[in-house]
Amino acid sequence: MDFFFNPKTVAVVGASATPGKISNVIIRSLKDSGFAGTVYPVNPKHDSVEGLRCYPSLAEVDSEIDVCVFAVPAQLVPGIIEGSGGKVRGAIIISGGFKETGEEGRGLEGELHELVKKEGVRIIGPNCMGIYDTVSRLDTFFIPPDRMKRPGPGGLSIISQSGSFAVTAIDELAAEGIGVARVVSYGNMIDVNESDCLEFLSGDDSTRAVAIYMESVSDGRRFVEAASRCSKAKPVTAIKVGKTPEAAAAARSHTGAMAGHYEVYRAALRKAGVLELDGYEDFISACKVFGSAPATKGERGGRRVMIITDGGGMGVGIADRCSALGLEVPPLSDEVKEDIRWAFPPYCSMANPMDLTGSATDELFGRALESTMTGDYYDIAIVAALWGPPALTDDLAGVLAQRARIIDKPVLLCSPGGEFTRSKFALFRASGLPVFPSPDEAARAAALIWRRRELS
Amino acid sequence: MDFFFNPKTVAVVGASATPGKISNVIIRSLKDSGFAGTVYPVNPKHDSVEGLRCYPSLAEVDSEIDVCVFAVPAQLVPGIIEGSGGKVRGAIIISGGFKETGEEGRGLEGELHELVKKEGVRIIGPNCMGIYDTVSRLDTFFIPPDRMKRPGPGGLSIISQSGSFAVTAIDELAAEGIGVARVVSYGNMIDVNESDCLEFLSGDDSTRAVAIYMESVSDGRRFVEAASRCSKAKPVTAIKVGKTPEAAAAARSHTGAMAGHYEVYRAALRKAGVLELDGYEDFISACKVFGSAPATKGERGGRRVMIITDGGGMGVGIADRCSALGLEVPPLSDEVKEDIRWAFPPYCSMANPMDLTGSATDELFGRALESTMTGDYYDIAIVAALWGPPALTDDLAGVLAQRARIIDKPVLLCSPGGEFTRSKFALFRASGLPVFPSPDEAARAAALIWRRRELS
Repeated sequence: MDFFFNPKTVAVVGASATPGKISNVIIRSLKDSGFAGTVYPVNPKHDSVEGLRCYPSLAEVDSEIDVCVFAVPAQLVPGIIEGSGGKVRGAIIISGGFKETGEEGRGLEGELHELVKKEGVRIIGPNCMGIYDTVSRLDTFFIPPDRMKRPGPGGLSIISQSGSFAVTAIDELAAEGIGVARVVSYGNMIDVNESDCLEFLSGDDSTRAVAIYMESVSDGRRFVEAASRCSKAKPVTAIKVGKTPEAAAAARSHTGAMAGHYEVYRAALRKAGVLELDGYEDFISACKVFGSAPATKGERGGRRVMIITDGGGMGVGIADRCSALGLEVPPLSDEVKEDIRWAFPPYCSMANPMDLTGSATDELFGRALESTMTGDYYDIAIVAALWGPPALTDDLAGVLAQRARIIDKPVLLCSPGGEFTRSKFALFRASGLPVFPSPDEAARAAALIWRRRELS
Repeated sequence: MDFFFNPKTVAVVGASATPGKISNVIIRSLKDSGFAGTVYPVNPKHDSVEGLRCYPSLAEVDSEIDVCVFAVPAQLVPGIIEGSGGKVRGAIIISGGFKETGEEGRGLEGELHELVKKEGVRIIGPNCMGIYDTVSRLDTFFIPPDRMKRPGPGGLSIISQSGSFAVTAIDELAAEGIGVARVVSYGNMIDVNESDCLEFLSGDDSTRAVAIYMESVSDGRRFVEAASRCSKAKPVTAIKVGKTPEAAAAARSHTGAMAGHYEVYRAALRKAGVLELDGYEDFISACKVFGSAPATKGERGGRRVMIITDGGGMGVGIADRCSALGLEVPPLSDEVKEDIRWAFPPYCSMANPMDLTGSATDELFGRALESTMTGDYYDIAIVAALWGPPALTDDLAGVLAQRARIIDKPVLLCSPGGEFTRSKFALFRASGLPVFPSPDEAARAAALIWRRRELS
């Protein structure tokens, strides 16, 4: 498997010279991403593609091929692999038209399966996006960069049965300033499956957290083993879709997956120490918190939330959401109140939520964060900064980030509002604090941190 | 009450010539908003403010004053009203420093209460933002326009006990292209309360839907009566915060409200036909759907959702969310399938969710919407458009909006993703279709439409 994540040579079969074509986008990406290995375009119709020498067939390539990308019609793939003279180690088959399309497609998959057994080639796909990897710089995702931004380097790895889900999620993460390590879209899993990926990611030093999108698993027992091992080393979260019979039927027509009984999956995830996510929003939130925030600390289980805001009503609403999610919002102890009262103007409410009011300043926010989160009273802070107060400046993000480093506990920002507010998100992202557009999402993110802790 | 929403004369007491000061922002807003009545700045220190003649006291103003805005220290307010010679009909008291600050503040509120009884003046506030009204063009919200965008005209009216909540919500709605009619932030409700506002809005032709943020109500029985009358005429939704004892305590320090037992509120809202919202996100979603989408139709109760997407995995995930929220995602009937199969390429899955795949076009989306939503099979459509497919163009929004008008049922768009995707939101908004950044929010919005129908 390792050669998929550390390839020296990549061939692209069906290499096209036409901008926008799948194979052309991939070749351009490999050139632009800074991929350090050798790229071999393969197409009998061209002498060169994007300035690279183009080979008439795999047989002409004078090297072993670590990763061979196929963006040709499904029925051609088995023949091309067979004719390669055994030099293909790993294949990424982008093309659809296999088992998700019915009888004939299933036959084709059978042929590929034989090849895996006979020739020892490993296959990712078919019907997938392949790999986007900021460590090796491999990028077989074929959406042009103007339509899908690529995230920068980070500690989060994602494995996804759905290509469009992976594309959408990493595009959103890129916009949110969250970096990734390895992203694998494995599609119909004729060979490489979620367990193979998890086994690799368990031991991968570049990966500090894993997020999974799955419709089905290939082998339940192996998955529980692989996921258990991985979740002992780093946070593993997963969204399982196709929970109802109707949705499961839709998943079948999507990747040919037998989604199975949801309750079985649910139990398997829990057993494996994998935090189950509830939908797309949760998935993005999990990527934000485990991709950027330090693990939650605190003796009493990580569920005690401190809320700091300059909008009283927003604070009360967040307290409600937290309670509904099983988190605690303990009042400030008299001891803490006495300790910190002197440091705040009289109009600030010394309570949880703490309301700094419309007279809030950057420094008051920083002080509120540090003075309440020091000591073992709270595990997670939610800071809801509304940008109405005129004294707030662009320094707020830096002030909060600096105090967050001192207190060494998760600090989740939320900043609901319109254009002015949204223009400030980049500041928070740049300072390394996860920022959520709504208070509800921040509360759900806090719950994810706590639930992850409960699992491990 | 009506003079608050149709004022001919507005005085601003404590009018400042300093940009950024509360009273100065309000005077500028009244000049910029196109307010057609007369504005009287009042301040003995100035001869003119922002080019308007400034009066030394209310006694010097030679007219009845429909709305008198107070942005002066709390303890000065009763004396100024008493000295006005009875010409003030309605007062908006922006200033805080009343019951929410304790004993002395409560005394001041008592004095104001006496004035209401004795002089017949009506009071909004204290401790509030007042009114933002696109019909009368009154705007006492004192956040400068660069920090808070004002929504354009629309059919949605909002009443809010929390000023910062109202500010944040309308700023977000402005960014989302949702218009409003009347927005009232009534704060500590020494006089005008939620029931007064509801009674006015019930009969207000400019208001087609009402959204409420409340921490408490002044008079439960009157609220149920007023809300019942209003909800018979138009959708009324409400978020009640301070559900837990801790959050209720925080609400008390915020607006001095006794938040009371949540279960009592919950029952009262249900009895009054008011759709209860679960948090800030729900509030914004409700504003989007009742502020723009037509009421759901369909014989069987409005819970049948059709999902159309070009991202198979996203569709399956939405089906899961819908089921979890009590909605139905019925499969396409064989009859419909037969009817429409010819109109779609073979790679499109004829199912619910319908997956148009990465080969989707604007026209395929439009065709899918019209052909599945015509007839009495589905009540609500969720269209999840991912922008990866290269054939999708900026026409998509117009195509969908045109088909939505034909089918005359709610069509909710969601378009998760990053920068490219977000750059397309404005197109959907401009075409009048509500757009949600995540599939989860679109599913929750569909549930709101259905639950609202169940209530009425």
